Amino acid sequence: MTSLTLATANAIIEGAFARGAELGLKPLGVSVLDAGGHLVAFQRQDGASFLRPQMSAGKAYGALSIGAGSRRLEAFAKERPHLMAGVSDVSGGRIVAVAGGVLILNRDGEIVGAVGISGDTSDNDEAAAVAGIEAAGFAADGG
Amino acid sequence: MTSLTLATANAIIEGAFARGAELGLKPLGVSVLDAGGHLVAFQRQDGASFLRPQMSAGKAYGALSIGAGSRRLEAFAKERPHLMAGVSDVSGGRIVAVAGGVLILNRDGEIVGAVGISGDTSDNDEAAAVAGIEAAGFAADGG
Amino acid sequence: MTSLTLATANAIIEGAFARGAELGLKPLGVSVLDAGGHLVAFQRQDGASFLRPQMSAGKAYGALSIGAGSRRLEAFAKERPHLMAGVSDVSGGRIVAVAGGVLILNRDGEIVGAVGISGDTSDNDEAAAVAGIEAAGFAADGG
Amino acid sequence: MTSLTLATANAIIEGAFARGAELGLKPLGVSVLDAGGHLVAFQRQDGASFLRPQMSAGKAYGALSIGAGSRRLEAFAKERPHLMAGVSDVSGGRIVAVAGGVLILNRDGEIVGAVGISGDTSDNDEAAAVAGIEAAGFAADGG
Repeated sequence: MTSLTLATANAIIEGAFARGAELGLKPLGVSVLDAGGHLVAFQRQDGASFLRPQMSAGKAYGALSIGAGSRRLEAFAKERPHLMAGVSDVSGGRIVAVAGGVLILNRDGEIVGAVGISGDTSDNDEAAAVAGIEAAGFAADGG
Repeated sequence: MTSLTLATANAIIEGAFARGAELGLKPLGVSVLDAGGHLVAFQRQDGASFLRPQMSAGKAYGALSIGAGSRRLEAFAKERPHLMAGVSDVSGGRIVAVAGGVLILNRDGEIVGAVGISGDTSDNDEAAAVAGIEAAGFAADGG
Repeated sequence: MTSLTLATANAIIEGAFARGAELGLKPLGVSVLDAGGHLVAFQRQDGASFLRPQMSAGKAYGALSIGAGSRRLEAFAKERPHLMAGVSDVSGGRIVAVAGGVLILNRDGEIVGAVGISGDTSDNDEAAAVAGIEAAGFAADGG
Repeated sequence: MTSLTLATANAIIEGAFARGAELGLKPLGVSVLDAGGHLVAFQRQDGASFLRPQMSAGKAYGALSIGAGSRRLEAFAKERPHLMAGVSDVSGGRIVAVAGGVLILNRDGEIVGAVGISGDTSDNDEAAAVAGIEAAGFAADGG
């Protein structure tokens, strides 16, 4: 039902946490969604806020809904706020248009899912997501 | 219950996809709504994101709700953001105020429905919608 | 992003309408969802009520959420009403637990999507869905 | 912010999957929530339906909301359907009142969180949850 396996999702989270530790980031929440926008795995590090599940998933969901990393969504939101507001509305309020939602691409460049991270700055969240995706052997598109 | 027949809706979608192919657009989602804002037909081309149903319908629904093509809604959203935010809220979050939602007018200039397209740039989405409506023998008002 | 192509979805709808015509059914709304529960195609026949999009999609969505045709969901709903009420609640109110939502299975028995039909009796809706799926060369599981 | 560590949550999921494999259960979705009802970790096994995140979390959330395993909620739902319907409504539709949501108790008998599992029968879901909690060194209360 998903071409993004649980094993891959767990490897991505492990890689993201490893990069977070290297960079000394704050506690992170990491969501891995399949290409249909559904959660495959989530982990929240000790001390991270209770809303990290929704915030991290919201970045990944937004990336998938537009087909671009959420950094691009953040640019859209600044240029045309009504665009992202409308997309979030019709999604049922499931989108966070901020960097840190990164597409997971296979060797053929196809989107197989997305990672969303929330916990530190948006730039650092995105860096950890990219590291996790690459550690699992996939290509990353942060937008 | 609707004066916009399914045959017309399918012809509009066919015409929109034909124009999309001519212009080399990305995979599109096309929603055709009747004058009451209810879906008559939808098709999503292979590779288009899972949120295209809601995004395309949101443009068409917004156009019908104001009685103007969604390009006009986008202008409203820029000038008076609270206007479109309020309209979207009272609609239950069903509006995307971005170009690409185009009214379908009969020979008497009456609104019989709207087409919404999402997948490429807003301008290209609108161009495909206009082409589909005209191919089906109706007049288009993109706003 | 979906292994259920638009061409397949359109063939299923065509087959369902053909069976509906043979059986003399009332006007139907037919939704075809991919395995992730997202709409690929929808068509509403002239004269069908405006809520057929949501009702047909709700049957298909429910089938996918449980991994069984919606006839089985209807049995669950009768035996354990709180079960289907809860599942519908956490889905955001997207489920109609009534026969007429039928899983689409490929040659390996994998679920590649679901069809939901609403318009006539539940039994007739299901019969049309099964006919459409088989006409397109797939196997059907109504529950 | 939570006394239920991520390490514990991961150990619980690992233990639940191990019991699922022993019993030959269908693919499972496992949510671990802290005492505040917020997600600490989730994993969905390959082949499990896309709604397993919400269904598993809904069982655990319901257990925490009442302070009893969700088997007890199911009994409430049968005896007084309006009770669980009302509780689900005021929760924003976040409760599934079916067995398989199990409280996690520390040595002092305090509730430190809950596990919810969805994928097989309710009884089997609950058995896997209990096994996971005990494997991690905590006591389980399924209701």
